[in-house]
Amino acid sequence: MDYYIGVDIGGTNTEIGILDTNGVILNKKTIKTDPTQGAEKTFERVWEASKEISKEICIDENKIKSIGIGLPGPVVDNSILKIAANLSWGDNFPAKELMEKISGKSVKIENDARAIALGEYLFGAAQKYKNSMIISIGTGLSVGIIIDGKILSGAGGAAGEFGHMVVEDNGYSCGCGLKGCLETYCSANGIVREAKRRLEGNIENGLYKKFSENLEKLEAKDIFEMAKSGDKFSQEIVDFFCRYMAKGIGTLLNIINPEAVIFTGGVSKAGDFLLEGIEKHLGKYTLGINLENLKFGFGQLNEEGGIKGAVAIVMLSDVEK
Amino acid sequence: MDYYIGVDIGGTNTEIGILDTNGVILNKKTIKTDPTQGAEKTFERVWEASKEISKEICIDENKIKSIGIGLPGPVVDNSILKIAANLSWGDNFPAKELMEKISGKSVKIENDARAIALGEYLFGAAQKYKNSMIISIGTGLSVGIIIDGKILSGAGGAAGEFGHMVVEDNGYSCGCGLKGCLETYCSANGIVREAKRRLEGNIENGLYKKFSENLEKLEAKDIFEMAKSGDKFSQEIVDFFCRYMAKGIGTLLNIINPEAVIFTGGVSKAGDFLLEGIEKHLGKYTLGINLENLKFGFGQLNEEGGIKGAVAIVMLSDVEK
Repeated sequence: MDYYIGVDIGGTNTEIGILDTNGVILNKKTIKTDPTQGAEKTFERVWEASKEISKEICIDENKIKSIGIGLPGPVVDNSILKIAANLSWGDNFPAKELMEKISGKSVKIENDARAIALGEYLFGAAQKYKNSMIISIGTGLSVGIIIDGKILSGAGGAAGEFGHMVVEDNGYSCGCGLKGCLETYCSANGIVREAKRRLEGNIENGLYKKFSENLEKLEAKDIFEMAKSGDKFSQEIVDFFCRYMAKGIGTLLNIINPEAVIFTGGVSKAGDFLLEGIEKHLGKYTLGINLENLKFGFGQLNEEGGIKGAVAIVMLSDVEK
Repeated sequence: MDYYIGVDIGGTNTEIGILDTNGVILNKKTIKTDPTQGAEKTFERVWEASKEISKEICIDENKIKSIGIGLPGPVVDNSILKIAANLSWGDNFPAKELMEKISGKSVKIENDARAIALGEYLFGAAQKYKNSMIISIGTGLSVGIIIDGKILSGAGGAAGEFGHMVVEDNGYSCGCGLKGCLETYCSANGIVREAKRRLEGNIENGLYKKFSENLEKLEAKDIFEMAKSGDKFSQEIVDFFCRYMAKGIGTLLNIINPEAVIFTGGVSKAGDFLLEGIEKHLGKYTLGINLENLKFGFGQLNEEGGIKGAVAIVMLSDVEK
């Protein structure tokens, strides 16, 4: 039997797992990314950890067929990380080449949000659909678009920048330099900021009563929970979030016309409550024909999404051959 | 040598052409669509006209390899016209099947805007690019998106509904039932309506001086021409148009990340003046990485776009085989 290594490299931590051909994680490990020591050091430690987790379950490293790596940033041709903003490894960083040199294995890389989408497509909630959009709502906001069973990467590796769809002219300033990006409204950070803005002028509400002592620790899930429990103030914030989300999704639906939309990432844990809030507004932003037969769902891989998504990058391209 | 028939069916007229394998139109003819007589009658007349234009240039009908048809509305699997709003042929109309029965030839159909995009990809301005967006600005607004050399049709045949991207909450009412659709701002009709709205409160301008006698005949090109000639009032209308266009295009670029954007349709005749107007605003709506290396261009097929696009539908799928 062949085995695959999946690596999810984040700015702080890197998760590494070994999977069988059924996509089951047999063993895994988290290491510090420590990107400032340089990419070579990080990749060497990733490969060492990969060998360790294999050895621990008595799998010979010769049985490792290939390595998939998810990375934060635009990725071109499953090879080059164009911008490594959180990793300071310079532009046009040849991640595939470096890891192949270090490991002697075949390697493919992909943008991390697209890797998660591929994971849901191969192993999770998007399996049934050849055409889907996997929307990750976490700290930021992004989309992995699957068209005829392939991920949309874009000519320069920068497709799916859903979070930077401008939904308000002269809206809130975004970290990217633009103003009014969807992510400034529709992300874990966005909804917490919105709540804090509103709390400045309104303390007669359940959210304030519960969190005023601890406002710096307020999280997106707290706001959704308060809304669910009936706090009108929190419900208005959630509705504000859902209306923008519907605007963004409606725009995507009119352009892409997929079979299914799958929500993943931390904020998607709000589940049907979130979905109902979005659906309430969706008809204002989408042609009827693009809502016809459309399915909604939630990601199934959760915290395994990074590793499984990384393995999906290499397993899917094996299938294509 | 093989020959192809290209058919562009509109609500009023239908254009039919015979092309050689180089994509040269050897002969063509325009007939009335007369859709109310029923699809069968229309398709029979299309086939009769196809045989006529072949005979006129001494091409035996046995040499006709296949027929491509562009139709207004969402098309699924190059076979079914899902909604034939302007043609009253009912939903899920099996256009491919009917034309194959009548002609005995192999037939493929496609949405007309996507056919034009395929035409530019095979014969025109998009030839150099495997990933492009062909934006048609005419009476309405639509986009044909080419990804890795294939047109994005969408799971239900309704991809590329660029004109119905909602850019203003509670904006102008659109014929589709939504409000604030991009098409209500950025189309030939949209810019003329905007000019007339502004002329109600302002007659001290060049546009009024030139067209006040004949306001019902005002066309998009008149407004662009007056703007080019220095009329500030018209320049402001064009800038209003270009800002919305930039918002729409910027959104597409962030999601699709193509190599090139090609403008076609009547309003695109405004040329570099239009492009400069759009580029002025594009940086507010697009991530820098999605503007990097991006090329702009104008369609090359013009009034031949419908027929050549229809033939591109069948020629491109021949190549794929």
